[in-house]
Amino acid sequence: AVVTCVPLLCFARVTHGMPDPGQRDLLMLEEAFMQTGGRVALTETEQKLDAHLHQLKEKEMSAALFPPAMHFFKAKPLIQRSPIFRLLQKMPKAALHIHSSALVSVEWLVKNVTYRPHCYICFTWDNSVRFLFSDRQPFPRWDCFYWQLLETLRAKLGDPTGFDNLIQRLTLFTEDPDGEYPNQDVVWQKFEKAFIAAAGLITHAPVLRDYLYRGLVELMLDNVMYLELRSGLSRTYELDGTIHEKVWSLKTFQEVTKRFMSDHPDFLGARIIISVNALSVSEVKAAIKEAIQLQKDFPDVVAGFDMVGREDSGRTLWYFREALSLPADLSVTLPYFFHAGETDEGTDVDQNILDALLFNTTRIGHGYALAHHPLAKAISRKRDVAVELCPISNQVLKLVSDLRNHPAAVLMSEGHPMVISSDDPSLFGTTGLSYDFYEAFTGIGGLKANLGTLKELAVNSIYSSLPAHLKDTGYAMWQNKWNVFVLDHL
Amino acid sequence: AVVTCVPLLCFARVTHGMPDPGQRDLLMLEEAFMQTGGRVALTETEQKLDAHLHQLKEKEMSAALFPPAMHFFKAKPLIQRSPIFRLLQKMPKAALHIHSSALVSVEWLVKNVTYRPHCYICFTWDNSVRFLFSDRQPFPRWDCFYWQLLETLRAKLGDPTGFDNLIQRLTLFTEDPDGEYPNQDVVWQKFEKAFIAAAGLITHAPVLRDYLYRGLVELMLDNVMYLELRSGLSRTYELDGTIHEKVWSLKTFQEVTKRFMSDHPDFLGARIIISVNALSVSEVKAAIKEAIQLQKDFPDVVAGFDMVGREDSGRTLWYFREALSLPADLSVTLPYFFHAGETDEGTDVDQNILDALLFNTTRIGHGYALAHHPLAKAISRKRDVAVELCPISNQVLKLVSDLRNHPAAVLMSEGHPMVISSDDPSLFGTTGLSYDFYEAFTGIGGLKANLGTLKELAVNSIYSSLPAHLKDTGYAMWQNKWNVFVLDHL
Ligand SMILES: [Zn+2]
Ligand SMILES: [Zn+2]
Repeated sequence: AVVTCVPLLCFARVTHGMPDPGQRDLLMLEEAFMQTGGRVALTETEQKLDAHLHQLKEKEMSAALFPPAMHFFKAKPLIQRSPIFRLLQKMPKAALHIHSSALVSVEWLVKNVTYRPHCYICFTWDNSVRFLFSDRQPFPRWDCFYWQLLETLRAKLGDPTGFDNLIQRLTLFTEDPDGEYPNQDVVWQKFEKAFIAAAGLITHAPVLRDYLYRGLVELMLDNVMYLELRSGLSRTYELDGTIHEKVWSLKTFQEVTKRFMSDHPDFLGARIIISVNALSVSEVKAAIKEAIQLQKDFPDVVAGFDMVGREDSGRTLWYFREALSLPADLSVTLPYFFHAGETDEGTDVDQNILDALLFNTTRIGHGYALAHHPLAKAISRKRDVAVELCPISNQVLKLVSDLRNHPAAVLMSEGHPMVISSDDPSLFGTTGLSYDFYEAFTGIGGLKANLGTLKELAVNSIYSSLPAHLKDTGYAMWQNKWNVFVLDHL
Repeated sequence: AVVTCVPLLCFARVTHGMPDPGQRDLLMLEEAFMQTGGRVALTETEQKLDAHLHQLKEKEMSAALFPPAMHFFKAKPLIQRSPIFRLLQKMPKAALHIHSSALVSVEWLVKNVTYRPHCYICFTWDNSVRFLFSDRQPFPRWDCFYWQLLETLRAKLGDPTGFDNLIQRLTLFTEDPDGEYPNQDVVWQKFEKAFIAAAGLITHAPVLRDYLYRGLVELMLDNVMYLELRSGLSRTYELDGTIHEKVWSLKTFQEVTKRFMSDHPDFLGARIIISVNALSVSEVKAAIKEAIQLQKDFPDVVAGFDMVGREDSGRTLWYFREALSLPADLSVTLPYFFHAGETDEGTDVDQNILDALLFNTTRIGHGYALAHHPLAKAISRKRDVAVELCPISNQVLKLVSDLRNHPAAVLMSEGHPMVISSDDPSLFGTTGLSYDFYEAFTGIGGLKANLGTLKELAVNSIYSSLPAHLKDTGYAMWQNKWNVFVLDHL
């Protein structure tokens, strides 16, 4: 059903004798042309940087240890020493798939937030932790009986570094990822535990304000100039137990972004993709109505809507079709940014990608299974629906061990619309996007991915996300930064 | 450069409100239509079997342990208990990619061949073994100093099961594949050692005759009705040290095949793909000249030519271009069946696939990297050049750990020409093709692969391999067996 016609090939005849070396070169060129960034025309300066980059890449790819072939927890120190990684850190780019609860490094949470006054800690029976800021001794809860003031506990223990293990409880890091996470169920359990553990810190209203600002700082340090943050807009609490509704979080996000932009005039902005954990159809209906209202009230802040959670165990998008068709029924536009195809099951859940497209999703979160769905792939390409590739997330959550086998290698070789992101950086022990860019550029793209690939990926992240009235400004701003980046690395 | 137009999509408009469930069904049908076997029209009886198969598949795919996600050495006992596997064993099919030195199960070699008289054994310094049949005490060799008559040694040791460890030395099997084979280099070393160890047994002239017959028996037990065997046509030796030239092996193969066919009238035949280990251009030239001559002398036996060895460390096909263009220069036809793209490197070696196509290869051995090369993929599809998919080989040789991530999943979803084979069954501890069919059908094809997929894969293996004058007979014979197979499983 797919009509494929490659121009050169249409005229290619069966060769006799030695194949024409000229034809071979042409075919190789033509194939390189198809990959992400293959049609990007590089300036002379860019070509020089590209040649340099190619040399660096050849060297790293022929080394005994190639980071994308290893688990990220073991690869991280190697990546940090890579000159390619350091170059990627300087590259201007945008982050379009990060979840708010995992935005800021756990080091900051532990070393800054948990040292604040009135911070209580409680150890749960299943070896997790809960935090709570309170101006009085908190009541016991079903999941946590004995709350201790962290300040007192720390003084008692004497050894402040003993609390380093707190950091590990808030991330997925372990020295032995394969042993400790034998399968997806185990790693997803730990994943959800870590989220719950951090929630008590992040949802304290004064902390959230600082947390969001700190998140933008960490992105800026990695030269990320724009952010679309997936957030459930949790309710937040004050020391005296006062609760703020969701809209407070949204206002705080708006206010923090404004402040950050006035402190850093070369930051382009940040928006929210409202993300709910899918439960019943009626709950999703309510969430969508709320999102429509919030988008109306905060048009500059709300980018759209998504549903999150583990697909394999959850409901399909089609199950929620009545809810998801609400905006169209009400003749309003609520852009969707669905997580879909974050699975290696090869089962019905894969169908989510097609459904996301049927509901006119703007981008596809992950789309891990897309390469195995030729029709969905064709539709996504035709409509320029980019997949949000998060390589480290896919590896840590055990979809693929050697990233050279990531199915996005197929998509990159065909120039499928794509952006790179980091999903849950704090849980995986990353900050910014450069670790993920490194894996995508060297491991998934292979030797043939080049500066044109990076340029297209970076441009995609800027150009495809911004609202129309910001596109030109954003692109111009990015282009300036890109030119400086190229010159700085010659 | 690729013009893609999916008919339904060309007319698809952006949907408003709830997507039309009818359109969704159509799109899903259309995508299913694209996969391997998607366009195969099933008879009513076949549809019944297909429904049954689908149920079995759903059950196995939702079990706690899914064999394709595990290393084959651990998955094997699970696969043996699978009703899908037992069904695949009954399915009539052909084997187009097996190497002669790994054709017959090691159990047979140890329990039959090593018990023959005059069999000497020698343990090398690097913990490998050598065998030699001889009517007198063999001379010490550089790699083996102390030869013992196996009969004497066995009597001395008393415990015959103690020799079971011989079996392990001749295969890659280990209880702890990930620990024992930390990387590709280690597993390839063991791989080559196992080949060398078995060589002394197999190249003994009387053994070779029985070995080939036994190989056909083992295939027949798995309902493999046709074989294309890759063989270097080693020289063989007699008890008294007499050496037979390559042509003796070819004649023996011909004679054994004839005898087997008269013993088993429903066996279709067997041919040889002459395979050399690539060294210098002049050696390859000589090998090709010899292959041309052998093909002329044994047109019914010699199917074509291939080069073998580990690509990552070897020369590229393009390096041998002068040699490979010899047949065309001499205006003779020598079909090529190149191993190409058996690599996850993402480096220049990937280029071998394009070069194999430029040299008009008839099929591609493995083509592991093909999915990452959109132009080569288009050429291979247009010319109907099938890839020979050997999933267990790729997993054991560490290209991919979870077979659901095998890039052939992309090819299967697009209906790329493909056959399934077993590469080196004895080394991996398989016999026949059904283990590999199981992995391809459940792991790589996923839930959507169905009886049509199996039918197309089986037909491919029969129809695409036979010389023109045998095609109709072969296909008719296969169709009869297929009908019986379907009826037997209702
Ligand atoms: Zn996500
Ligand atoms: Zn092979």
